[in-house]
Amino acid sequence: MTNAFTRTPLWGTLFQDPYTAGEFSADSFCARMVQFEMAWTRALRESGAIEPDIAEMALAEITGFQPDPDALADASDVDGLPVPALVRQLRSSLPEDARVAVHSGATSQDVIDTAMVLTALAILSTFEGRCAELLRLLDDLNARFSDNPVSGRTRMQLALPIAAGDRIQSWRTPLAAHLGQLPELINAISVVQVGGAVGRRDLPNGAADAIAAGVAKSLGLRVSPVWHTDRSLMLDIGHWLTKVSGTLGKLGQDIALMAQQGIDEVQLDGAGGSSAMPHKQNPVRAELLIALARVVAGQQGILAQSMVHEQERSGASWAIEWMTLPAMFEATGAALNSADHLLKQIRHIGQRPAD
Amino acid sequence: MTNAFTRTPLWGTLFQDPYTAGEFSADSFCARMVQFEMAWTRALRESGAIEPDIAEMALAEITGFQPDPDALADASDVDGLPVPALVRQLRSSLPEDARVAVHSGATSQDVIDTAMVLTALAILSTFEGRCAELLRLLDDLNARFSDNPVSGRTRMQLALPIAAGDRIQSWRTPLAAHLGQLPELINAISVVQVGGAVGRRDLPNGAADAIAAGVAKSLGLRVSPVWHTDRSLMLDIGHWLTKVSGTLGKLGQDIALMAQQGIDEVQLDGAGGSSAMPHKQNPVRAELLIALARVVAGQQGILAQSMVHEQERSGASWAIEWMTLPAMFEATGAALNSADHLLKQIRHIGQRPAD
Amino acid sequence: MTNAFTRTPLWGTLFQDPYTAGEFSADSFCARMVQFEMAWTRALRESGAIEPDIAEMALAEITGFQPDPDALADASDVDGLPVPALVRQLRSSLPEDARVAVHSGATSQDVIDTAMVLTALAILSTFEGRCAELLRLLDDLNARFSDNPVSGRTRMQLALPIAAGDRIQSWRTPLAAHLGQLPELINAISVVQVGGAVGRRDLPNGAADAIAAGVAKSLGLRVSPVWHTDRSLMLDIGHWLTKVSGTLGKLGQDIALMAQQGIDEVQLDGAGGSSAMPHKQNPVRAELLIALARVVAGQQGILAQSMVHEQERSGASWAIEWMTLPAMFEATGAALNSADHLLKQIRHIGQRPAD
Amino acid sequence: MTNAFTRTPLWGTLFQDPYTAGEFSADSFCARMVQFEMAWTRALRESGAIEPDIAEMALAEITGFQPDPDALADASDVDGLPVPALVRQLRSSLPEDARVAVHSGATSQDVIDTAMVLTALAILSTFEGRCAELLRLLDDLNARFSDNPVSGRTRMQLALPIAAGDRIQSWRTPLAAHLGQLPELINAISVVQVGGAVGRRDLPNGAADAIAAGVAKSLGLRVSPVWHTDRSLMLDIGHWLTKVSGTLGKLGQDIALMAQQGIDEVQLDGAGGSSAMPHKQNPVRAELLIALARVVAGQQGILAQSMVHEQERSGASWAIEWMTLPAMFEATGAALNSADHLLKQIRHIGQRPAD
Repeated sequence: MTNAFTRTPLWGTLFQDPYTAGEFSADSFCARMVQFEMAWTRALRESGAIEPDIAEMALAEITGFQPDPDALADASDVDGLPVPALVRQLRSSLPEDARVAVHSGATSQDVIDTAMVLTALAILSTFEGRCAELLRLLDDLNARFSDNPVSGRTRMQLALPIAAGDRIQSWRTPLAAHLGQLPELINAISVVQVGGAVGRRDLPNGAADAIAAGVAKSLGLRVSPVWHTDRSLMLDIGHWLTKVSGTLGKLGQDIALMAQQGIDEVQLDGAGGSSAMPHKQNPVRAELLIALARVVAGQQGILAQSMVHEQERSGASWAIEWMTLPAMFEATGAALNSADHLLKQIRHIGQRPAD
Repeated sequence: MTNAFTRTPLWGTLFQDPYTAGEFSADSFCARMVQFEMAWTRALRESGAIEPDIAEMALAEITGFQPDPDALADASDVDGLPVPALVRQLRSSLPEDARVAVHSGATSQDVIDTAMVLTALAILSTFEGRCAELLRLLDDLNARFSDNPVSGRTRMQLALPIAAGDRIQSWRTPLAAHLGQLPELINAISVVQVGGAVGRRDLPNGAADAIAAGVAKSLGLRVSPVWHTDRSLMLDIGHWLTKVSGTLGKLGQDIALMAQQGIDEVQLDGAGGSSAMPHKQNPVRAELLIALARVVAGQQGILAQSMVHEQERSGASWAIEWMTLPAMFEATGAALNSADHLLKQIRHIGQRPAD
Repeated sequence: MTNAFTRTPLWGTLFQDPYTAGEFSADSFCARMVQFEMAWTRALRESGAIEPDIAEMALAEITGFQPDPDALADASDVDGLPVPALVRQLRSSLPEDARVAVHSGATSQDVIDTAMVLTALAILSTFEGRCAELLRLLDDLNARFSDNPVSGRTRMQLALPIAAGDRIQSWRTPLAAHLGQLPELINAISVVQVGGAVGRRDLPNGAADAIAAGVAKSLGLRVSPVWHTDRSLMLDIGHWLTKVSGTLGKLGQDIALMAQQGIDEVQLDGAGGSSAMPHKQNPVRAELLIALARVVAGQQGILAQSMVHEQERSGASWAIEWMTLPAMFEATGAALNSADHLLKQIRHIGQRPAD
Repeated sequence: MTNAFTRTPLWGTLFQDPYTAGEFSADSFCARMVQFEMAWTRALRESGAIEPDIAEMALAEITGFQPDPDALADASDVDGLPVPALVRQLRSSLPEDARVAVHSGATSQDVIDTAMVLTALAILSTFEGRCAELLRLLDDLNARFSDNPVSGRTRMQLALPIAAGDRIQSWRTPLAAHLGQLPELINAISVVQVGGAVGRRDLPNGAADAIAAGVAKSLGLRVSPVWHTDRSLMLDIGHWLTKVSGTLGKLGQDIALMAQQGIDEVQLDGAGGSSAMPHKQNPVRAELLIALARVVAGQQGILAQSMVHEQERSGASWAIEWMTLPAMFEATGAALNSADHLLKQIRHIGQRPAD
């Protein structure tokens, strides 16, 4: 999870996932907000809510529009979010009477929530690939080491002997299950936010349903009831991220325990060095997975505070989401990358035969 | 959420749900652990793992068995859980050679996890009814007040006028969605835990699959991969409870705001009195819903720490579940009850017409 | 941390601390609330706010008063707290004109917050003794084993050899520091809550300062600015509990790691048995310390939500305190007890000399 | 709290505090790590642990050293932290036999923990000034509006009339108290970390105490027992940040409630606009304070997980600190800035006299 400290080059990519950070960058997020506005104007046109020629003028403008994220900063300091300024920018080069073709009947929350959905979908799709790759790596380890003896331990004490394949299975099964649940999550969140000023979907000229459907279609999403104040979907995303990072945390904890001298049930290549003891081989990525899991877990408990979302829109609850959910995406992305790194470091699993 | 303070009669049932507490009582939980042992012995018999006559002897004993929860306390202080002592109690009146018919091949975690699933299923089924009743109450309020004007507010500021029905809908829609997701959750968690000592499902005489299937069938559950160390299902339950209590927290927050003098968009009957200002009508239940929502939300972030579940069984991670998930059930149960109470207190929603 | 599940006899005293639960019992807490009312009436008399004979009549009544906690339950369900009903009970046997001698100018929050302070002080004083006893046990272990070799480990990898005494010191130093900070915490929280209806300390006949001082003196507390809405003191208590239980969590984690076969740097007597593997010696108390530490840690993040305490009194924020702080006391009490138990189980620390 | 999303220009400085981010920047943190190494080499020289001429050579090198943070990134990906690579850089231009003058006997944790202390001290000193400025602004508001009537509200219901000054006092008193506690916190954390490889302070040539004292003196810190595994100081910092941001959250919540139309007890200048309702004046900063308070509160519950710090150094627990504490600093810094902004926006507090 990045912050002003963990995103510095001092920490390499331990805590960050450049891909995920890129999806949340100003450029990407702006592009998705503009994508929403484009879809909105199209839907206004198709529903007959605005005149075709005015719509075309606006669409041409939006198509060529280059948002200037930096210019939005000052406006956000006042408005609490960048959408009013973005809309002003979009409208500024249109003749007065064509401005109605941009954003009319929409509200900031429609724009930001929908852009957040599009961002989440992109990242989840990438994470899907990463999970699949981890499963492949686990299968490969299983193929190489499954029959090696490992000491089964419960409550940290020797229980009965197991095989390396059993331990690997305990990492693989939940990850495969999370991956299996991803299509359902993706489907659930593939909904447009179209609520208008106070969530009633009171759109121009009574064209509410047509406009919502049009926007959804343009963006490859579905129409659903307005979810301005029902943040369950955001929580569902956080829940999935918590399960994935938690499962990788178990993997990390197990590897760190197996790498202890005296246990010696895993050997790692290229583990980390120490400034005081250059001989050490620290299971850096294994420990990192534990830390990321615990932080994501705790963040879900903060994100869930946003469910108490008062009235028609809570700036406070909404801001809690922005501070937590992207951080959870970054941390889970970092965990998926570190797990990949760690699994590739494994040279051997299981007890060595006595000489 | 009850603790040594909030479960005292000083607080009535504000923080507790006697029904839910009953499902977690020693008697209920013991009965479910014994139910597991009964199913286990039956499955041993049916799979041929033990002799029929020995099995019958054991079944007769288990059938008449009256567990003595208090007698388990001392043993738990040593063993960390009550199962070893329970098994000793069950076996004690059997002849030596029949003792194999009880618990052989099972482990404490099989017993406790399965009993926890049965407990969760019972409570969720009750909560299903409570959610449905809340929807009915909301429908009733909607029928009475839907057209009354209410001030739509975003960021706590007047936005556009809405109707009481819009506000009611913002409470109803997510609750109905959670209710709609409950059958899937119930189905997902309707799985038996059959793993044996180290989660390999190494059962006597190679009868693993048959025994697992037999136990599941007896208990009305399904067989699934061993989930000794994959605690996703527990987290899924916590997630649902978080969404339900969070949605009720929004309801409470809205009512508390609407009840402010100066806003006056809800009137409540029988709200709470004050020791200093007897005239006051405090929206006690509305505030309580906010508090319960925030506490359950935070608990999910603690429960999720249990995902870092090392090796074949972590006593530490498991204990985190016991300290959080039942508390979340209790708090959500209390919230469902308080929401019922609160909705029934509502005498009017919406602005009063000017005289 | 107790809930409907962990307080059953099924779990012995693993999660509960009967002493702490007793301090939060209805009887104890009621007695402390009555103690406040007694002090209040005395202060009213001494400040001249009420007539001496009326005050004496009230004091005689309060002195003989036997609160009936169960009778408060129904009232709490309505009022959100037991104080209005308690005051009614107290006043009921007084003649009409003497009733002014009870609670006049006080508010429920004055009663409950002050009773909570008295409860916290009692428990902290007991915990002080427990911490001191743990230090004594650690000193004893140090005297016996300090020179034994132990493998110093960083990032779970062998670093340089250390002595058992070094490891013991890493448990002792923070605990001693927490103990050393306790007098300051005790002093900080030894304040009476005297705010009246809306926290202005608007007391009868302008006798505010005299009454506040009188109440404080009766109860052995100090006067401080009204802290109705500043919950820092509650958070300070939680912070101390978090540090103590966290330090014990580190102790537990270290013992659990040292007890691993293959490491074998601690031997425990009387560790827990298993239903599937009777030979096992599970470090039950060590694991429990980890779990309690993680749960208390997370609770502090929930308790802190109560700092957002709106206006002159927030029923929602206040209820969050009641749901968390007593639970943190119970869990820390259980951790102190389990640490005592665990340290006494230690038979040997350090590597055994090779035969 | 910044993450990949909230640090983009899209959000202006709502969630970030450029000053605090600067203190955690690679340049600043590197400079502080180098400052430690400089102090270390000096202390080695003064204690006689290394030859004076070698020490001078090393000091000259360190003095002119320009760390290249970017070059540390790759090394951190391997080692889990930047110190080993930084030490290599520092030593690289020294003759072989002079390299012993750099970092000998120190460990990565000594460097990072001490640099973190220096960073925290710098930020806390800045926050001290910000708190004092907020008190000044509150005093100014008090001077202007203290006698204006405000509706005292408990449980969100009208209680008794109060004055604006009472409400202002409820914001000021805790903030002043936190400010008053800051010198003690600053003193407590003004300690150097000197533990060496495994926390025994086994330094070259038995010069441990002299070296520790020398390093501390160079850096303006004190010597204390090694705190490699006792993370109480980090938690103490987090606790103070939690109290400050929580107190500002109460301010924000009160302002947001007072700004409601129908209550109208505060008027703000320059509040935020809406994309759908240009007439609105949203109390953006007030809501933000609530959100920041809730997020910081929850983070303290995550930071506290790091107390379970196993053995002589836990990479996992340590990483949890890096992911949370800087985020809490940033968020509290942003809250202090937003509170300043908000207080300056206040045009009027209290009910307007009826016309």
